Amino acid sequence: MPRSREIDVFLLPALVEPAALAGKAVVVIDVLRATTTIVHALAAGAAEVAPFLNIEDAQRLAEQIGNKAVLGGERGGVPIPGFDLGNSPAEYTPDRLSGKTVVFTTTNGTRALERCKLAKRVLVAAFVNFSAVCRELSDGNELAIVCAGTDGHVTREDTLLAGAIVTDLAREKRCQLNDQALLAADAWQTAVRLMTDRPLGMMLRDSRGGRNLIDTGQENDIDLAAQIDRFDIVPELDLASWRIRLP
Amino acid sequence: MPRSREIDVFLLPALVEPAALAGKAVVVIDVLRATTTIVHALAAGAAEVAPFLNIEDAQRLAEQIGNKAVLGGERGGVPIPGFDLGNSPAEYTPDRLSGKTVVFTTTNGTRALERCKLAKRVLVAAFVNFSAVCRELSDGNELAIVCAGTDGHVTREDTLLAGAIVTDLAREKRCQLNDQALLAADAWQTAVRLMTDRPLGMMLRDSRGGRNLIDTGQENDIDLAAQIDRFDIVPELDLASWRIRLP
Repeated sequence: MPRSREIDVFLLPALVEPAALAGKAVVVIDVLRATTTIVHALAAGAAEVAPFLNIEDAQRLAEQIGNKAVLGGERGGVPIPGFDLGNSPAEYTPDRLSGKTVVFTTTNGTRALERCKLAKRVLVAAFVNFSAVCRELSDGNELAIVCAGTDGHVTREDTLLAGAIVTDLAREKRCQLNDQALLAADAWQTAVRLMTDRPLGMMLRDSRGGRNLIDTGQENDIDLAAQIDRFDIVPELDLASWRIRLP
Repeated sequence: MPRSREIDVFLLPALVEPAALAGKAVVVIDVLRATTTIVHALAAGAAEVAPFLNIEDAQRLAEQIGNKAVLGGERGGVPIPGFDLGNSPAEYTPDRLSGKTVVFTTTNGTRALERCKLAKRVLVAAFVNFSAVCRELSDGNELAIVCAGTDGHVTREDTLLAGAIVTDLAREKRCQLNDQALLAADAWQTAVRLMTDRPLGMMLRDSRGGRNLIDTGQENDIDLAAQIDRFDIVPELDLASWRIRLP
């Protein structure tokens, strides 16, 4: 019998140590909104995205590279004073980004990326590039999926996307799933079943992240994040330079 | 419009601080096997269960109370040398337990109970007393559900029971659920849908805890844990004496 493929999901960065991701392919998910925005930025023609945990580090790089830089990010869901852009995918447009380096800082998404420093490769996933990510992962290698969550809380939208990826890959090849992967897949299957009555964008409105965006007047971003397969690209983190680019 | 009921699920003890549970009704779940075994023990006529995190503390109490004590518990899924009983529900029978104090130590279940020291009340739930727990919680008060997991890993069986309770209570009254509660309910709904083909006991075999029990030759405990509503009792932790009893 052929060996089954191991797929582990971690519903929060804190639930996995960097050593446990060593040498593996890892998918990072922060649907509302970091990974959705990164996909938008690269689809809009940005040369690369440089993710930072700290505002100061981001500002320092932006100063170094001068007018090639676009500073983007958020704290607590709102734009950072002095930055060019917030964390709304709608802001990441070709006219602003073509050929630029997006110097980007968000707390949850960046924290998830930091966990991956020992990984073999790190892909950036959102609903907007779901099928492209699944296709890229069809090699059958061992895989981990790290959900960013929000401030240490598990989020429904990240878990649903993890479950969608697991469900897709498990259709191709027999998989050995950890319990978080089983649960994410179970949850996604319920979401799919309800989707005729209740589209993904409506479900994301019920989540903590969705409610936060509604409360801060950024409800439109939920609909942008829910556009499954809008883009056919897979951003990948170059681990040596710590920049996210298209292949 | 009447206020909606807040129900928060925490998939692991580490995902909630004791202060966040202060003054709330809390349900503790460790399906494989601590809470299942506690329900069995009290159903079998034990006077009370005294839960301890440390083996030494358990042994000290057992010495103090002499032949009224029955020492039970596990480490790493196997019985503790010198203890009367392990952590298999099948061992907790009336002939051994009638009128006794079960001095009980398991890592995961006890750790979940420790989180609840500031709670208003703490109920012990397993699939074997599912409906009795739901009935007891029908008062509509704010509620938290803490899953024990296994050694810091989320477990499918605990999450499914949390989802079953949430689903039942949300049918009675409009609820405001955190994302972990939404996900648990989503996962449970998929489980219910599959249950005609794949009974609960089969699903629990796929989980990490289920595989551990199979590996240690204790597969029968999975079927005991999957007997929904075998008992009509709700064990409750008396917070002053730190003993679990029936009302």
